[in-house]
Amino acid sequence: MPRKDPKGSAELALIARIRQRAAGLPSRRVKLGIGDDCAILAPPREQELLVTTDFSLEGRHFRRDWHPAGSAGHRTLARGLSDLAAMGATPLAAFLSLALPRSVAREKLWLDGFLDGLLALAAAHQVPLAGGDTSESPSTAVLADIILLGSAPFGRALRRSGARAGDRLYVTGSLGGAAAELAALAAAPKKFRHATAAGDHPHLFPQPRLAVGQALLRRGLAAACIDLSDGLSTDLAHLCDESNVAAEIHAAALPLHPLTQTLAPAAALHAALHGGEDYELLFTAPTKVRMPRSISGVRITAIGNILASRRNRPQVTLVDAANRRKPLAAQGWQHLQ
Amino acid sequence: MPRKDPKGSAELALIARIRQRAAGLPSRRVKLGIGDDCAILAPPREQELLVTTDFSLEGRHFRRDWHPAGSAGHRTLARGLSDLAAMGATPLAAFLSLALPRSVAREKLWLDGFLDGLLALAAAHQVPLAGGDTSESPSTAVLADIILLGSAPFGRALRRSGARAGDRLYVTGSLGGAAAELAALAAAPKKFRHATAAGDHPHLFPQPRLAVGQALLRRGLAAACIDLSDGLSTDLAHLCDESNVAAEIHAAALPLHPLTQTLAPAAALHAALHGGEDYELLFTAPTKVRMPRSISGVRITAIGNILASRRNRPQVTLVDAANRRKPLAAQGWQHLQ
Repeated sequence: MPRKDPKGSAELALIARIRQRAAGLPSRRVKLGIGDDCAILAPPREQELLVTTDFSLEGRHFRRDWHPAGSAGHRTLARGLSDLAAMGATPLAAFLSLALPRSVAREKLWLDGFLDGLLALAAAHQVPLAGGDTSESPSTAVLADIILLGSAPFGRALRRSGARAGDRLYVTGSLGGAAAELAALAAAPKKFRHATAAGDHPHLFPQPRLAVGQALLRRGLAAACIDLSDGLSTDLAHLCDESNVAAEIHAAALPLHPLTQTLAPAAALHAALHGGEDYELLFTAPTKVRMPRSISGVRITAIGNILASRRNRPQVTLVDAANRRKPLAAQGWQHLQ
Repeated sequence: MPRKDPKGSAELALIARIRQRAAGLPSRRVKLGIGDDCAILAPPREQELLVTTDFSLEGRHFRRDWHPAGSAGHRTLARGLSDLAAMGATPLAAFLSLALPRSVAREKLWLDGFLDGLLALAAAHQVPLAGGDTSESPSTAVLADIILLGSAPFGRALRRSGARAGDRLYVTGSLGGAAAELAALAAAPKKFRHATAAGDHPHLFPQPRLAVGQALLRRGLAAACIDLSDGLSTDLAHLCDESNVAAEIHAAALPLHPLTQTLAPAAALHAALHGGEDYELLFTAPTKVRMPRSISGVRITAIGNILASRRNRPQVTLVDAANRRKPLAAQGWQHLQ
């Protein structure tokens, strides 16, 4: 039987807290924010609309005993922003569905830290938090779902499906840093308790490549693009699936993150290939495109080529320093299991 | 430490299943659906955009041992559609974030029933399922978050904040049916195992009032509007808060759902006032507006009036059949606790 329980106390307090905090990020695109049945946005003219939703579930995507609250909030928003970056979109607004266990809702400190992290990243990219939902969690886990709306000129958004045989394959920034930092975090979570977005923390505070994605679109530099959330081997397989092509990558060309130097060489390569959550962009361009060495201050590295899909050809081939070729299986990691 | 676990098997199978099922609802507004980093929509010209997100969490919003899977799916989408209805909006697209416990993902039958219920309601309102996210649930609970995008002519969306002293207060359809059916469901869940949307099931298969909301907007019949999700007493308080007014409702005027006849008279009134989840629309209009007796086949009933907010006046007053007045506290129920 349902139990009578004046709705509101905890949940309305939570909504009020988020509403108050979100008010710090006004936007001319948001006509009506938190406080009605829906938010109202004014979409930019002559643009198409991009939408992505991403869960951040405690125990799957973060752990409260490992991740500072600010990191959990930052990572929640970064997942959605990185999806917009992968399509070259400009963010319009974010929406947050958030369910807290009663103990976390009561204590408030964690929520404030989470919102600090989320809203600092939102402010850095001028993304208003325009609405969402709140609930009590049915378990002891914090449950978040972030929704991002963005825009791009009609028909111009970068897609996974645009790669063609002969294209070169590029990656932004560096690889393996998130996996290397996650390993260090798991070994000694206390060391990271005071980590902030100001430091270089590829796992705790990844930087979504919005400026790079927008430049790739604006300057017509990319044929296909995806963000590296699941790991290079897995995300490249997604790109090949949607473009119906194969690919080869050169191990010696991979730009390893400095943090991978804490790992054995084989583990460093593994982190770069399969680590996931680097939130860099993986994209292709015809060879005739003169690719800049950096875009918006982020290094661009050629790491391989797109090949025609053939029956006896592996979808993805890894070429080592001695020019030996072997199939590369999609082995993205599922973290925190 | 993270455990290596080839991503994809379960999660990609779930995405593929949803993608296949969602393909049955094409839309010229969806330029790119499930399968890339974001979905791409073509927003209608000269319209503003409405966005709402709503959790449907097992143990909070439904129970797998009470609700047929089709009801859980239907109710998940109905929550979002009802928010659009409350603002008079036309749905553009839905997005579903869905996390399943491993046992549920493996068994598939529940997922198919859930998608059957959700997609049947989507088809009835011509709403494409254009994207979302999937994950393994960190607990034994199914976790869903539904995101609805809709559109309305610029500056015309119905809001909670438009009520003025002197307005009449109206409600669509009937009240208390959802609470009455929930009580019956809790007493004997097995009786409802084969319930479908074809029957009159105000709790299991509520009907969001999209056509009524759109007609209210188009015909300029409403000054303020909200949907009855939390219960009349609570949602009327929300409307009064946002409009900075007070209200009185007449107990004898409330249109009780036939299912409330299974309850004692006091319990029937309680279900209508506080029951929640009827997903009817509560709206106001100046007295000069000639209100039709029904809109789109749904009965419209005047149940009270909007009053000026005064220091010594309760926000909401209940007037009984003998014309006695007493304050009505917001007592929306939290179900399934």
